[in-house]
Amino acid sequence: MMNTPLLLTQMIERVEKYYPNKQIISRTESGIHRFTYKEMVERTRRLASGLEKLGIKEGDRVGTLAWNHHRHLEAYFAIPCSGAVLHTINIRLSPQHVNYIINHAEDKVLIIDSDIVPLVEAIQHQLKTVKAFIIMTDKEELPPTSLQPVYHYEDIINEGNPSYRFRNDLDENAPAGMCYTSATTGNPKGVVYSHRGIVLHSMALGLADTTGVCERDIALPVVPMFHVNAWGLPFAAVWFGTTQVLPGPYFTPKILAELMQNEKVTITAGVPTIWLGLLKELDEHQYDLSNMRSILCGGAAAPKGMIKAFEQKHGIPFIHAYGMTETSPLATVASIKSENDRCNKEDRLEIKSKQGMLVPGLEMRVVGKDGEVEWNGSEMGELTIRGPWIASEYYRDERTKDAFRDGWLYTGDVVTIDEMGYIKIVDRTKDLIKSGGEWISSVDLENSLMAHESVFEAAVVAVPHEEWQERPIACVVLKEDEAVTKKELLEFLEPQFAKWWLPDDILFMKEIPKTSVGKFLKRTLREQVKGELKKV
Amino acid sequence: MMNTPLLLTQMIERVEKYYPNKQIISRTESGIHRFTYKEMVERTRRLASGLEKLGIKEGDRVGTLAWNHHRHLEAYFAIPCSGAVLHTINIRLSPQHVNYIINHAEDKVLIIDSDIVPLVEAIQHQLKTVKAFIIMTDKEELPPTSLQPVYHYEDIINEGNPSYRFRNDLDENAPAGMCYTSATTGNPKGVVYSHRGIVLHSMALGLADTTGVCERDIALPVVPMFHVNAWGLPFAAVWFGTTQVLPGPYFTPKILAELMQNEKVTITAGVPTIWLGLLKELDEHQYDLSNMRSILCGGAAAPKGMIKAFEQKHGIPFIHAYGMTETSPLATVASIKSENDRCNKEDRLEIKSKQGMLVPGLEMRVVGKDGEVEWNGSEMGELTIRGPWIASEYYRDERTKDAFRDGWLYTGDVVTIDEMGYIKIVDRTKDLIKSGGEWISSVDLENSLMAHESVFEAAVVAVPHEEWQERPIACVVLKEDEAVTKKELLEFLEPQFAKWWLPDDILFMKEIPKTSVGKFLKRTLREQVKGELKKV
Repeated sequence: MMNTPLLLTQMIERVEKYYPNKQIISRTESGIHRFTYKEMVERTRRLASGLEKLGIKEGDRVGTLAWNHHRHLEAYFAIPCSGAVLHTINIRLSPQHVNYIINHAEDKVLIIDSDIVPLVEAIQHQLKTVKAFIIMTDKEELPPTSLQPVYHYEDIINEGNPSYRFRNDLDENAPAGMCYTSATTGNPKGVVYSHRGIVLHSMALGLADTTGVCERDIALPVVPMFHVNAWGLPFAAVWFGTTQVLPGPYFTPKILAELMQNEKVTITAGVPTIWLGLLKELDEHQYDLSNMRSILCGGAAAPKGMIKAFEQKHGIPFIHAYGMTETSPLATVASIKSENDRCNKEDRLEIKSKQGMLVPGLEMRVVGKDGEVEWNGSEMGELTIRGPWIASEYYRDERTKDAFRDGWLYTGDVVTIDEMGYIKIVDRTKDLIKSGGEWISSVDLENSLMAHESVFEAAVVAVPHEEWQERPIACVVLKEDEAVTKKELLEFLEPQFAKWWLPDDILFMKEIPKTSVGKFLKRTLREQVKGELKKV
Repeated sequence: MMNTPLLLTQMIERVEKYYPNKQIISRTESGIHRFTYKEMVERTRRLASGLEKLGIKEGDRVGTLAWNHHRHLEAYFAIPCSGAVLHTINIRLSPQHVNYIINHAEDKVLIIDSDIVPLVEAIQHQLKTVKAFIIMTDKEELPPTSLQPVYHYEDIINEGNPSYRFRNDLDENAPAGMCYTSATTGNPKGVVYSHRGIVLHSMALGLADTTGVCERDIALPVVPMFHVNAWGLPFAAVWFGTTQVLPGPYFTPKILAELMQNEKVTITAGVPTIWLGLLKELDEHQYDLSNMRSILCGGAAAPKGMIKAFEQKHGIPFIHAYGMTETSPLATVASIKSENDRCNKEDRLEIKSKQGMLVPGLEMRVVGKDGEVEWNGSEMGELTIRGPWIASEYYRDERTKDAFRDGWLYTGDVVTIDEMGYIKIVDRTKDLIKSGGEWISSVDLENSLMAHESVFEAAVVAVPHEEWQERPIACVVLKEDEAVTKKELLEFLEPQFAKWWLPDDILFMKEIPKTSVGKFLKRTLREQVKGELKKV
């Protein structure tokens, strides 16, 4: 067979030739922006040539600090298709962490949304490698800024070469992108994505058996483009000629629901917190989302009650998936096997509430105390994964040795795997509650609590205990205007769990602290809980 | 990213874990055979270990001479997943050619269907490298044979190791399979498929936008497993856990229609000749093929009338695809773009009668006299392709230099490409009719003739002409009990073509000579036509 490399260049050249008239729809500061792939690809060529003029060379990192919109999509291809590395920076991190990762990745140029400029200004004097700043804005003039040297993105486009030829001579293992993931302690850790990894991951997204992203889809990635490449959707969508709807900054559930309705969105992707908000909006107001064929949910476990509400009340298929920054991210999808077609609604919901089956192309083991666990849905073990779109290391980081061992990624997620091969996350290795030599899954307790009609959110953490080593404490946020007592909630849990699983206490809170990507911040919560308990 | 190789081993290990209970249904000499993937994989492990016991080592070629059935499927994985090379031999070739390719490939072991044994016996003394013969039969005893040494396939399975571990340490570029393709003159030419090529090709088959092969499918490959790996369907089907229906030897249209009906087949694949036969059967008898979502047709251009009959009369989606032994084979698929949804029936049929759009992962150029042709649907040029599942050479064959140039495969197919990127084959470079400095497409004329209600088959060839260099002659086979005159057929063609395109003569024949895979044998036909014309 020919040794032609798997490159992003082939993806963007395909959409230019085959789907020049398909659209990219962006919500921006000045309204809804629409243009075609033909226009997008020409602008991408211009941007690539502009970056070369600024001195960007093969292998150089170019950072982006931006929301989901058409300009960011241009950068998604201009940077890797000219041989450089697209470094998407999580703008929700602390300034210190943003500073750390820009210096650690040695970004040469930063491409920044105008509303993010103040964040960069605050750290500019600590940036050691950045040679130029490019500001993305709809306005004709740049906003006043102390960044130097600074360029208007549209000037670079205007002065760029519309006939720039994307690189098709790169090694498929060359880096195309990178993304830093928050660590429990210390600085974020960098993951590098190769061209090969992104191409294969895009193919996996297009398989009929996984998420089936296709030309006929109208895809709205709610998950930020600075978070694991918006789960790779923008790459797959460009390759397959999928219409894209990019929601821009600072959206509300109402804005999302309107976009979905008006643009006839068929597939969307995001974390459970987003879908909780959307569900509330759909419960309260009338929308026509009949085109929606799939809400993809990942990043954290989706509560069963939420899945049920989307599927059975609103008739929208809800697909649980699992992955992480280190896995590009698609690793498992909870699609229903044909042998389960005869399941009743409840069993079907049970399957859908699991994280799902490994996608074709990857390998998986669930490793317990004594080697691989049985596929019985009850034995717990750590999920380990390997494959061509799984990271092999953290970029220049000695923490590599903790997570990457014997050729496998140790995900840090504790799961069970059932007879059919569906995994279910029961906890992070760090969040498992070890009570009297046995394991209690904080996630199981949380999901049950969140299935209570008065509960908006619930998180369960371990507190040290003299006799049992650790015991669970539940933290609960009630829905507006709802009231329920601690005793009632415990009685609600009682029939569902062994007695020793039941939380020792339930604390009612106004909100649960979350990470920049909407996950429960258990470390902070544990400190809060300790404080609360001391007060008592 | 991890440098885990793309290997067939991952494909078969996946089906074993995730779809052990899905079925493989085979029509054999003794009836319908059913077993599960769990059983199939265990037998495949046994076979792999048995081949090692016979002395097969990494890189050795193992030949198969067999129809489409479960044992052949076991060989499809046992051979490459133990590091050897699956060499599928076209049993419809002449004994001399079969002899040539076994010696040329240096096959160490041959695995043979019992009804093919006489073919191998006839050439056994010319075979230079074969150390053992394995006969596949449902019977307990081997048929009497002069082959030596000879083994019963089921004995090898019985004595094999059910816990044999498939190789996962191979290079992804290592050879996994090979297939010889007939040449216009001389011996067949060998194409080697790598593990990487087969895995990527299988992914392409699974994309929602191409053929979307998936777990829920029930796939019946009519195309022989000795012909470009049955278009790769058995590989993709195993990987995705698709139910397979294998039609065995010597089937009739009636047998196919019954299998499709009884097993609720959803997707099938074969050449136009097969579908002409099936269409006749469906026209004459009542079948319920309502589960069929896709008849894939390739290997030769399907006449528009046939596509229309399947789609509009029988309600079965008919999908034109294009490929060749050198392209694994999937290269283009005539799927309808969303922008064409508003087409009327006729325009839709026009699109479906083309060979389609390039599948994601490949690159294409159409090269005319003056470089790449315009995408205008009229300019003709030779189709050239490159990509990771395209051959880079003919195996140890100096004819490599004719077809593989500057990193591209020159397909020898003359095509037009329209504004939307759909290619249409107008001829083989060798079959184009060059009349007065202009090109006439024999295929266009054939398709129009075959759209006539009285015509069963039609082939058009060039004959030398003093003034015009070459002129077209049409050879027509009428449907049973139909009568039509030369004049009527010419009048039928007249409004559709420029006057100088019309055939100089129409010869009525009982049949048109075909290759072993059902394509018109134009070289032989040209000789016949010359003979006929001399007689006149």
